[in-house]
This record gives sequence, C-alpha cells and structure tokens, in this order.
Amino acid sequence: MTTGKTSQTFTMQKTVAFGDCDPGGIVHTPRVFDYCMDAIDQFWKTLLDGKGFYELVVDHDRRTPFVNVNMNFISPITPREVLEITVSLAKVGRTSVTFEVAAAQSGRACFKGTLSSVLVERETMTKVAEDDWTIASVRAFNEGSQSGGKPDPDRA
Amino acid sequence: MTTGKTSQTFTMQKTVAFGDCDPGGIVHTPRVFDYCMDAIDQFWKTLLDGKGFYELVVDHDRRTPFVNVNMNFISPITPREVLEITVSLAKVGRTSVTFEVAAAQSGRACFKGTLSSVLVERETMTKVAEDDWTIASVRAFNEGSQSGGKPDPDRA
Amino acid sequence: MTTGKTSQTFTMQKTVAFGDCDPGGIVHTPRVFDYCMDAIDQFWKTLLDGKGFYELVVDHDRRTPFVNVNMNFISPITPREVLEITVSLAKVGRTSVTFEVAAAQSGRACFKGTLSSVLVERETMTKVAEDDWTIASVRAFNEGSQSGGKPDPDRA
Amino acid sequence: MTTGKTSQTFTMQKTVAFGDCDPGGIVHTPRVFDYCMDAIDQFWKTLLDGKGFYELVVDHDRRTPFVNVNMNFISPITPREVLEITVSLAKVGRTSVTFEVAAAQSGRACFKGTLSSVLVERETMTKVAEDDWTIASVRAFNEGSQSGGKPDPDRA
Repeated sequence: MTTGKTSQTFTMQKTVAFGDCDPGGIVHTPRVFDYCMDAIDQFWKTLLDGKGFYELVVDHDRRTPFVNVNMNFISPITPREVLEITVSLAKVGRTSVTFEVAAAQSGRACFKGTLSSVLVERETMTKVAEDDWTIASVRAFNEGSQSGGKPDPDRA
Repeated sequence: MTTGKTSQTFTMQKTVAFGDCDPGGIVHTPRVFDYCMDAIDQFWKTLLDGKGFYELVVDHDRRTPFVNVNMNFISPITPREVLEITVSLAKVGRTSVTFEVAAAQSGRACFKGTLSSVLVERETMTKVAEDDWTIASVRAFNEGSQSGGKPDPDRA
Repeated sequence: MTTGKTSQTFTMQKTVAFGDCDPGGIVHTPRVFDYCMDAIDQFWKTLLDGKGFYELVVDHDRRTPFVNVNMNFISPITPREVLEITVSLAKVGRTSVTFEVAAAQSGRACFKGTLSSVLVERETMTKVAEDDWTIASVRAFNEGSQSGGKPDPDRA
Repeated sequence: MTTGKTSQTFTMQKTVAFGDCDPGGIVHTPRVFDYCMDAIDQFWKTLLDGKGFYELVVDHDRRTPFVNVNMNFISPITPREVLEITVSLAKVGRTSVTFEVAAAQSGRACFKGTLSSVLVERETMTKVAEDDWTIASVRAFNEGSQSGGKPDPDRA
C-alpha cells in the first residue's frame, strides 16, 4: 500500500445476497452494475469527505451520470465467497471520470471493466465548470496517485 | 416492417417504474440492464418457441451468460413516457450472439449498446456444440433477416 | 364488470422476469412488494388522471408512504404464467387508504394482503388536509364503488 | 449481551444504497424486505453453521418460504446513517419460524414487524419432519435463549 497507484485504489468487500442470484444459482448480470455503483459510491465518499451519490444529488446540486459502461464478465459469482471489488481511476477528463472496476472471489477474477461519468449540475444537467470542487478533488487525488502518493496540495 | 432487417427486429414497450428511479428523479443506471435483460428474454422467447432464460436454465440445461456489455447512455429516462426498447442481432458467432439494444422515449434516444452472450450447457458451463438447437435457431433467424425475410428453413 | 364493487377493481397483467426469481426457481419474496407497488401505482394513475407515485412526488408535493403491510403468501410464483394482480380499496380513512392486493397465476392464488398508506405533503411529511384533492378522489371513487357505480359527482 | 434473550438476538449493520432510494429521497418500501431477507439470511447462517438461504436451497434440498409478512413502517430511511437491523425469534412452531425484525437509524425506529416461514423440502415443497435438522437447530437455539443462554445440548 505504499506506491501511488496502489495506495489510491479503493477496495470493498461485498456479501453476495441470495436474492441477487438467478434460477441458475449465479448472480444475475444486472446486479453486477449495482455492485459497481455501490463501490463507486464509496469511492466518491472517500474523495469528497463523505459525500456520495446521495449527498451530491440531494445536498449539492450535482450528479455524475454514466455515459458509457464497458464490462467483461469473466466467471460466475455466487454467495459462497465474499466478492472483493476494486475501484481505481482509469482516466480523468476536464469534466469526466472513467473508473476501472474489477472484482474477484478468492482470487478468481469475476468481472472487469470501465464506467465513465460526466459531472453535471443536477438542476440544469449541464457540465460542471472545469474547476468545480468535484472534478478538482478527482484531479488532486489522481495527481497524488500518479506522482507516488504525495500529499494532495488542495487539501493541505 | 417489410424488409428483412426490420422485420427481424424485436420491439418492447416498457412502463418505467417509480421504484426504478433514484433521488435525482431519473432511472438508476443498473435498471437499464434489467430492461435489456427483459427485452433479450422476450427476444429468445420469440426465437425459441416460447423458451426464454427461465425455460433454458430450468428445463433445457442451457444458459446464455453475458461475456461483454458495452452501453452508451444518451439521455435520462423517467416514468413520464413509455420506454421503447428495440433488440436486434448485431453478430452471430459459432456459439455466441451479440445483441444490439437501443431504447427511446417519444423518439428521444435514451441508450444504445451491445450485449454479448455465449451459449453454454448449464451443468458444465461449457460451450454448446456448433449445431446445438439454440444457436441453430439464432443462425436461421439471422439468415432469414439478412436475406430479406425468407422463411426459416429449419422451421418449414 | 357490471356491479359497483367489481367495476372499481383494478387488474394488472404482469410478466414475471427471470431476474425476479431466486436459485430455487421461484420469485424472490421481496419482488412481490415491487409487484404490489407497480399495481398500486397504476391504481393511483387511474384515480388521479394519470398521476402516479412519480408525479405525486415530483410535481405535486405529495407522497403516500406505507405504514403497514400484511401479506399472506399462498403459492410460489414462476415466469411460466402471467401473474394477474388485482387491487381494490379495503378501507378509506380521513387521510389514509388501505389497498387489498391479490394475485394469481392461471387461477391459482399466489398472494393476498393489505397495504396501508397515509397521504402526506412530501416536503413536510405531515398529513394532508382531510379535503385534499388526493384523498377526495379516493373517497369519491370509493363512494361510487359502494353505491353500485354511480357517476363520481366530483368529476361531473 | 449477557442475558439469554439479548445474547440470542442478531444485529446487522446495513449501508443504505443510493439506488435503494426513490425520487422522494427515501428508501423505496420493497427494499425494506430485501433488507429483512439479508438479515434473516445472516441469522440462518449463525444458526446452521454457515448455511444460509443459498446453501439450504442449492446443497441441502431445503427452503424456508415465507407464509406471512406483517410490517409496520415507522419513519423514513435514508443513506445518511447506517441502518441497524435486529432479528430475533418471535415464535417457533413444529415446522415453522416467525422472526421479528426491527430497524433503526441512530436510535430512531424505522420499521418493525414479523416474517413467518415454513421449513420445507425444496424438491417436493412439503413440510420437513418435526425433528429435521433445520427446525431442531432453531428449537435448540430458542431454548438456549429462553433459559438464559445455557449451552445448546444438540451442539455439545
């Protein structure tokens, strides 16, 4: 956990629910995206001092609609083991963020892909300014990551 | 509905549920994949004489796990209008199928993308034979489509 | 459909989704409440000129939080048959409504129970006035129902 | 946690997901039953040496269909606080179990009710024998509870 890239990755342990599984006994595909959302929500909370999807929408007139999802499903998921989900930043644009999300059970890869969001003002659904506090936090986090974990200057 | 390609497209009208929407008042992203699943399920039922995901898994030792999903989200979905979802075949492989799914509300595009499945025997999770009845039906349907709608010889 | 009580009952045909079923091959219990919500939403739209849960919350500063649900599960639900869901008014209070919801597949009873809502102003979460347009519509509908289907005077 | 009754209660901390909330900003009612299922699943795992709904259905030819749910909703749930869910045994019949489930956020009661299951053989959907290992474990647990936490003789 000492290098930049690694130290900036967020990992979540997910208990797979019985109700997430289909009659074939494995997780129903759309639930994978619920898992991704939960993990990305936690990632935002880490970046934005506890503000996740809910706080952004309800309190701060922001939201982060997804514009693209590209996901590869590698092996089936069951409730027999904890699902370990890892989120990292794949790309940071001027007002957009691409997350890479990967998940495994006991080291066996289950899915891996990218989810891209744009940051918008909720009311108008227009892109935020390029120096908006939301994207600025992502950029600072990402620069900390790429440079090997140096302190985030915007939070100093 | 007279040309092959068009006549082979499946369209589904979906009532968007209140419970599918998030605190921002629009459909929660993972629900889009539930909608895609429902539309593809109907598509299978059309192709396979009423056999959808459920019948394939429970009665016929088959399933069609997704290996890739690549979806673009174009505009938000709300319950104010019916969602029209269109499914067509984008590619048919030896034991795989790629669906293109597109959706619109009142003509406004909402999402569009592809979902790729492999056809497997459920018990063993190994690929079906290349002449398995499942993929054979897809191929016959697709050839009918590409050749302008001629009768499916396998069903004559 | 000729008597008041019967004519005032709302019936909905529901296609049971593969993804609503659990590894035992039957509908996961919480999905029953999603079905009830969809049916009650349609009921509200019938009563309130197209206004359902979404329009009430987003456009009209109203919501109808449930205060009690009491449901008996009679037989398992599968996707093999359409689920027929019937909603009727079991009780109308001063600012509350109790719905009876029953469902069957091919005449076999699946579940039956009551769901009680209070009508509140969304912003303040306080009960609506006793002559609020929402509860007034319910009352008018119910009186029409009990008196054998006479025209609703409030809509004349 | 020293008296029998208290020591036999199971408590679960639940992070409320953004996607569980409706356009009014509070948890959509059917999700409450998903929460109850997750909590009861954990309860079964505690009782049955790690066997929950999934293992019962897939590995052990058992399931525990709900026959009645009676739930009171006391106050709205949001993602702002952790939801603490408590499960206890309200009644143990010959081949049935009634759970009491209660939930609170920061000490504010959110919902409270009962969910009753019968224990059946999955394949035949007939009641288990009265000395089946599943109901025997519940009974032993419950007797331990009522007598102040004495060791479960069946596990000695």
